[in-house]
Amino acid sequence: MLTLGELARQLGAELVGDPDQPVDGLGTIQSATDSQLTFLANPRYRSFLEQTRAAAVLIPESQREFCPVPALIVKDPYLSFAQASAFFETAPVATPGVHPSAVVDPQARIADSASIGPNAVVDAGVTVGEGAVIMANSVVGAGSVIGDQCKIWPNVTIYHGVTLGPRTIIHGNCVIGGDGFGFAFNGGGWTKLHQVGGVVIGADVEIGAGTTVDRGAIEDTVIGDGVILDNQIQVAHNVVIGNHTAIAGKAGIAGSAKIGAYCLIGGAAGIAGHIEVCDKVQILAMSLVSSSIKEPGTYGSALPVDTQSRYRRNVARFRNLDDLARRVRKLERSSD
Amino acid sequence: MLTLGELARQLGAELVGDPDQPVDGLGTIQSATDSQLTFLANPRYRSFLEQTRAAAVLIPESQREFCPVPALIVKDPYLSFAQASAFFETAPVATPGVHPSAVVDPQARIADSASIGPNAVVDAGVTVGEGAVIMANSVVGAGSVIGDQCKIWPNVTIYHGVTLGPRTIIHGNCVIGGDGFGFAFNGGGWTKLHQVGGVVIGADVEIGAGTTVDRGAIEDTVIGDGVILDNQIQVAHNVVIGNHTAIAGKAGIAGSAKIGAYCLIGGAAGIAGHIEVCDKVQILAMSLVSSSIKEPGTYGSALPVDTQSRYRRNVARFRNLDDLARRVRKLERSSD
Amino acid sequence: MLTLGELARQLGAELVGDPDQPVDGLGTIQSATDSQLTFLANPRYRSFLEQTRAAAVLIPESQREFCPVPALIVKDPYLSFAQASAFFETAPVATPGVHPSAVVDPQARIADSASIGPNAVVDAGVTVGEGAVIMANSVVGAGSVIGDQCKIWPNVTIYHGVTLGPRTIIHGNCVIGGDGFGFAFNGGGWTKLHQVGGVVIGADVEIGAGTTVDRGAIEDTVIGDGVILDNQIQVAHNVVIGNHTAIAGKAGIAGSAKIGAYCLIGGAAGIAGHIEVCDKVQILAMSLVSSSIKEPGTYGSALPVDTQSRYRRNVARFRNLDDLARRVRKLERSSD
Repeated sequence: MLTLGELARQLGAELVGDPDQPVDGLGTIQSATDSQLTFLANPRYRSFLEQTRAAAVLIPESQREFCPVPALIVKDPYLSFAQASAFFETAPVATPGVHPSAVVDPQARIADSASIGPNAVVDAGVTVGEGAVIMANSVVGAGSVIGDQCKIWPNVTIYHGVTLGPRTIIHGNCVIGGDGFGFAFNGGGWTKLHQVGGVVIGADVEIGAGTTVDRGAIEDTVIGDGVILDNQIQVAHNVVIGNHTAIAGKAGIAGSAKIGAYCLIGGAAGIAGHIEVCDKVQILAMSLVSSSIKEPGTYGSALPVDTQSRYRRNVARFRNLDDLARRVRKLERSSD
Repeated sequence: MLTLGELARQLGAELVGDPDQPVDGLGTIQSATDSQLTFLANPRYRSFLEQTRAAAVLIPESQREFCPVPALIVKDPYLSFAQASAFFETAPVATPGVHPSAVVDPQARIADSASIGPNAVVDAGVTVGEGAVIMANSVVGAGSVIGDQCKIWPNVTIYHGVTLGPRTIIHGNCVIGGDGFGFAFNGGGWTKLHQVGGVVIGADVEIGAGTTVDRGAIEDTVIGDGVILDNQIQVAHNVVIGNHTAIAGKAGIAGSAKIGAYCLIGGAAGIAGHIEVCDKVQILAMSLVSSSIKEPGTYGSALPVDTQSRYRRNVARFRNLDDLARRVRKLERSSD
Repeated sequence: MLTLGELARQLGAELVGDPDQPVDGLGTIQSATDSQLTFLANPRYRSFLEQTRAAAVLIPESQREFCPVPALIVKDPYLSFAQASAFFETAPVATPGVHPSAVVDPQARIADSASIGPNAVVDAGVTVGEGAVIMANSVVGAGSVIGDQCKIWPNVTIYHGVTLGPRTIIHGNCVIGGDGFGFAFNGGGWTKLHQVGGVVIGADVEIGAGTTVDRGAIEDTVIGDGVILDNQIQVAHNVVIGNHTAIAGKAGIAGSAKIGAYCLIGGAAGIAGHIEVCDKVQILAMSLVSSSIKEPGTYGSALPVDTQSRYRRNVARFRNLDDLARRVRKLERSSD
């Protein structure tokens, strides 16, 4: 079991307390037990700190005097807590080897330290790297490359021609490399443009449950290193997402949009196709980005809720907003 | 085969007609055949009632005289129809037992009356209750608890540490217990906060296809008894949803939001993180709730469509709405 | 390998160049190699045409003189490119037959030329047509009909009582035929209306990854011939979608809505329940259609992003828009 001393060493923290005290889990500052680690990031919650019963609290220097229990003094308590959380992960560790029920094509190359779970299916020409884990009932299509230490949770579908960099995590029921939505109108209906591009995903990416990333139409769809995608995001064909960009749940990125690095895209936001969003742009939740953004900064468009009666009245007025503006202009002219 | 007499008894209805008449299915009031049951909930559709050829119609007392076929007189015809629908369910009944192709860890406890379908995977320490059904290709992670009479449709992913109360239904391709979207910025990129909380889902919950419910960061994500969730909803980590709340398709609930009981959340609505919505709140479709709601009632924010030309003109005016308001203020001052 | 002469013949194009020149793939006009086919649809990109190194370019007659490499002269280059793309599809071809790991009920009828992939599950009474492909880990429920030449990608869930017309494609992790969201309030909670309708999907339909199509409550949900649906769309119970309508990613269609033929529904748009949208309507991205549309044309409602400061000011003004309009009316009256 981990001790406070060992934790302090791992986190580079100054320990105020007994280095031999064991820690067996994580807790919130309000409910952590005397064997759990917690943290205080926001000084506004100091009253919780003063009443905590945790085994230890990660705190900044400024809170040292208010901590009634052992303290780990760090610069950024939330970041240190995230680092510490790796020691308390509850997910079972996968066993290396191919489960007898998995169906692995003889032409696939599976590293000895990789784990292929029950009923997983791995097609011809696939490469699965050292320490990579493909969990139960996931499918990897022909020729795809699963980097070292990748973790593919259950029921994921990876099509042919997809490349994942090392340490990338794909959560349950994602679909990576499905066909992009490409069709030409033929006068009577739609002729499919077969999607012959692939998907290239960088290192240290994490993709949340139910997210879909389409393969490119001709060239590849590209997700950079360190990108984090939440659940149920749609990434269309030929999108490019820059390194370390974070996208919240249910956002949608239309075809050939190019998102910069270090962007923060809010939940259920929509990015139109064929536009560019530069680095370090933040988009608020449920906003629509319909043209390129060339300046870093924060942007939004969604209206927040109001009571139904006010909402209905304002919506009715919105339908005539152009008319209202013209009437104001007319009043201004007559008052000149 | 069910008779009208037996149906009347089961529903506590007064039967006007032959108790021995058989009923073998459900129909709409316009197309029900003479062996199908239908209902009239809205008196505005009385003309359909007068022309129906159904085996019987569930009607309120007030419509008795207008029914040309056998009638089942009830207080709430739609509710009685829902109750009756259970007798005509078309889904096949699962056979108890573990299918030979399923992979069940020897450390899992499966009730004798439970059914584990083809190619399903059940990990160590899982408990599957009496009469529970886990259908084809679904996966249940270590230590999770599937309550009595639960029904898990195919290709569902349940992670480790998830608890489902009795009679809960999870539709196809849901993901329950995937990691919440928790990361700390480390200056150059994102450090994962390992999500060590679980998910606790109550009794009699129904979750639609493709919905994702994330595990808690530290404590659990909680869904109360009798909650009904439609398809493709995202429930983020540490969300709490009160009993009997109904949420329509594609809604998104961000992290640590707390939704009360008996709420009705419209389709594709978004609830921001760390806010509270009190009991008995109705949110209209596609609305954004960005701050707490403390009064029961109905709230909305989405603009409805207009023709493209009016839409474009009004949107252009919206960009200058603050300026317009200032100009009106100025006119008011000058007219004082 | 395909030659330019053969391509010209297949596409009905006039070839300007060597008919024996081989072509082995597709490229963009900027990056195509000398063995790849490309196209120029938009004359604005003529400078790319003048610099291309492609094996051949599909161009309209008007661009003939500007093409430095072999040309295939066609009326609609993008449509011809889509037709040509079928020759360069990179997806592996499925092998006919039932994989030994698949679980196929003896009561299912599988055509000899059909392919049932590893760990797929096919229930009793299912019909799988000639040349149809059901890929790894997909599940087809009792009595469903998979038409000739259909292609079901991995981890798809098709419930009981679903019919797919010929040549229909269902991408990874779709759910077809899950229960619609039908419940009656019983005073204390929700009584399920068992969904006994099915789903009928026409010929030549394509459905993107992660899309869900619910079964009907009583009658069927219906998707017409040649409809194309992108990823993560929600189609609720008893929706009817007319032939050749195209719907972009993340759109949601609520229960019993009826969409006409040849409509174009934008990404993340929402269509309310029980309304009708006539033929040839275009809905812009993220718009809300809350009442029926009876005239063909283009409609929209979503506000595009603005900088945070302007956005916040305008949103604050929107809350008082009705009041602003009243104040303008008052000014008008006083200026009369």
